[in-house]
Amino acid sequence: PKSYKITLIPGDGIGPEVISVAKETLQLVASQEGIQLQFHEVLLGGAALDSTGVPLPDETLSAARQSDAVLLGAIGGYKWDKNEKHLKPETGLLELRAGLGVFANLRPATVLPQLADSSTLKKEIAEAVDIMVVRELTGGIYFGKPRGFGTNDNGEEIGFNTEVYSSSEVDRIARVAFEIARKRRGKLCSVDKANVLEASMFWRKRVTKIASDYPDVELSHMYADNAAMQLIRDPKQFDTIVTNNVFGDILSDEASMLTGSIGMLPSASIGESGPGLFEPIHGSAPDIAGQDKANPLATVLSAAMLLRYGLGQEQAAQRIETAVLETLNKGFRTGDLFSTGKNNMSRRKRY
Amino acid sequence: PKSYKITLIPGDGIGPEVISVAKETLQLVASQEGIQLQFHEVLLGGAALDSTGVPLPDETLSAARQSDAVLLGAIGGYKWDKNEKHLKPETGLLELRAGLGVFANLRPATVLPQLADSSTLKKEIAEAVDIMVVRELTGGIYFGKPRGFGTNDNGEEIGFNTEVYSSSEVDRIARVAFEIARKRRGKLCSVDKANVLEASMFWRKRVTKIASDYPDVELSHMYADNAAMQLIRDPKQFDTIVTNNVFGDILSDEASMLTGSIGMLPSASIGESGPGLFEPIHGSAPDIAGQDKANPLATVLSAAMLLRYGLGQEQAAQRIETAVLETLNKGFRTGDLFSTGKNNMSRRKRY
Ligand SMILES: CC(C)[C@H](C(=O)O)[C@@H](O)C(=O)O
Ligand SMILES: CC(C)[C@H](C(=O)O)[C@@H](O)C(=O)O
Repeated sequence: PKSYKITLIPGDGIGPEVISVAKETLQLVASQEGIQLQFHEVLLGGAALDSTGVPLPDETLSAARQSDAVLLGAIGGYKWDKNEKHLKPETGLLELRAGLGVFANLRPATVLPQLADSSTLKKEIAEAVDIMVVRELTGGIYFGKPRGFGTNDNGEEIGFNTEVYSSSEVDRIARVAFEIARKRRGKLCSVDKANVLEASMFWRKRVTKIASDYPDVELSHMYADNAAMQLIRDPKQFDTIVTNNVFGDILSDEASMLTGSIGMLPSASIGESGPGLFEPIHGSAPDIAGQDKANPLATVLSAAMLLRYGLGQEQAAQRIETAVLETLNKGFRTGDLFSTGKNNMSRRKRY
Repeated sequence: PKSYKITLIPGDGIGPEVISVAKETLQLVASQEGIQLQFHEVLLGGAALDSTGVPLPDETLSAARQSDAVLLGAIGGYKWDKNEKHLKPETGLLELRAGLGVFANLRPATVLPQLADSSTLKKEIAEAVDIMVVRELTGGIYFGKPRGFGTNDNGEEIGFNTEVYSSSEVDRIARVAFEIARKRRGKLCSVDKANVLEASMFWRKRVTKIASDYPDVELSHMYADNAAMQLIRDPKQFDTIVTNNVFGDILSDEASMLTGSIGMLPSASIGESGPGLFEPIHGSAPDIAGQDKANPLATVLSAAMLLRYGLGQEQAAQRIETAVLETLNKGFRTGDLFSTGKNNMSRRKRY
């Protein structure tokens, strides 16, 4: 039978609880599909800081690199919040993304019929929303240099970062997005701020160029501020969205909240080759950690994305997705899905 | 009687129509309040490009500088969309903001009881939302240098921008925001991405420092991605928000769309001294220009902000605001307010 190595990274807060449910799910579906999964657990974020002093231990990165796919719970928490940059849990996650070269972050925001009522949007606006945000993940202002602190010509203190994209960086994320749009409803909206920023003008130029290889996909462009509005005004106008790292961070979170159920939403981060990184989009929710309240479905659905995009095991992926729908159809709900407009899974992010 | 010079900038698309309504309103309220307003009309954006070849003619900037306040309609349109950066209508607006030194952009997002149904959010989520976004307007990545196009170490083409804030830039916008929060419900949320960006860590440090002068205001911090979610999840948690230029661009548009009536929303941009710039937040909506369909209330309410923040004429400002509410109470509506989820006034931004 086919055999795969899976790196599990429970991380912080509710991470360990949701990873353990996803692991059980993977084990079950593997035995049903006759595939073998070997699991290896490693540390990242706050958990790694506490036991090794760094947010991404070498052992974690090399274990991740040597495996076929990586499943991550969540990282971060109040405890490490005042740490300097190189000792923040988040820095470990950014280093892991860069270290694995996973430049394409796929974030589906799908409103399931069973959960259309959970959205704070009116039902007729939210229902049937099905957006895939393709976010560039290893470039842009997150990684651009120069960056840091200094003084300006007036002798005043400053803090600064660099937003920068090269042609190969834009081209490869554009190709991933066109391929995905092609398999969906054939519409791709590239989001930028090309009326103001040179980095965005460049982005738009390259995306437009790559478009000629995908005549079957309808490409449009939208400014980031307008996209933030249009996602609320009429989210169903969107199929696939491609955007840079920082706009993607903001807009994918906005899109996910439209569904009213971020405790349900998975993500996949993939590179040219090598293992992909799969993680729920919610945070580590320290307030509810250890209380068995966390919704594990985002991580379970991330495991499905791992099977599909990471291992090419489409049938196993669908087994998990079907099981999730059946569980919802039976009426099972976690607390985050009950109360419209209140969602504990987002708490981690509130500090 | 007191006399003031007002620079009117009709601009492009629906700009001239909405400015003419606002001018009439200002004339009426001036005669009622016994103040004198002298109007002077100048060109900006596409209109200026067409007749002078530049988006901000010198005459416009000097007229604006010599007046007591500037009222702008809207700029931009498909026609100038492919222009190079220095010949874009938007560049004229950015130069005008910089030229007037209006670093503080106040963008109220208020859901009027009369219009709570216009929002795409559920009524219980949208009603009574009352947020003031204070956006830094003359710094950050919009103006930071170096910027442009070039090649990287691999000889690849790149596009790049610089996000940079100095202590005086952060301090002065923070003070404006604290002063405003103090006159509102006493809560200020500073939005940044301090878990990733040095420019944001610096922003957070300075805002926290300024907070010690405003012990009566409750300061919190939130990451931009989370703010994009929280605005949808539970917008009523926010009172005053302060943030940088680019996050403010995105989040203020998102906040305004929560109200479902961007045809209603004004903005004020003010500096240390000198005239302020007042403009509706909607675009130039070329699709409906000249058809007498545009909602003039955003510009009329911008004229009220001009009276309040620009001329210190509080009573005159309130006269206008009361008249707007009475008009709505009588049941008058423009097309943008009728159909939930469709808002023509946002069209300009869709290209
Ligand atoms: C935790 C943080 C560094 C991260 C990001 O900004 O990329 C998170 O917000 C995300 O979107 O995965
Ligand atoms: C037209 C554009 C340059 C402008 C901006 O990005 O500031 C607009 O979106 C706004 O928010 O006033």
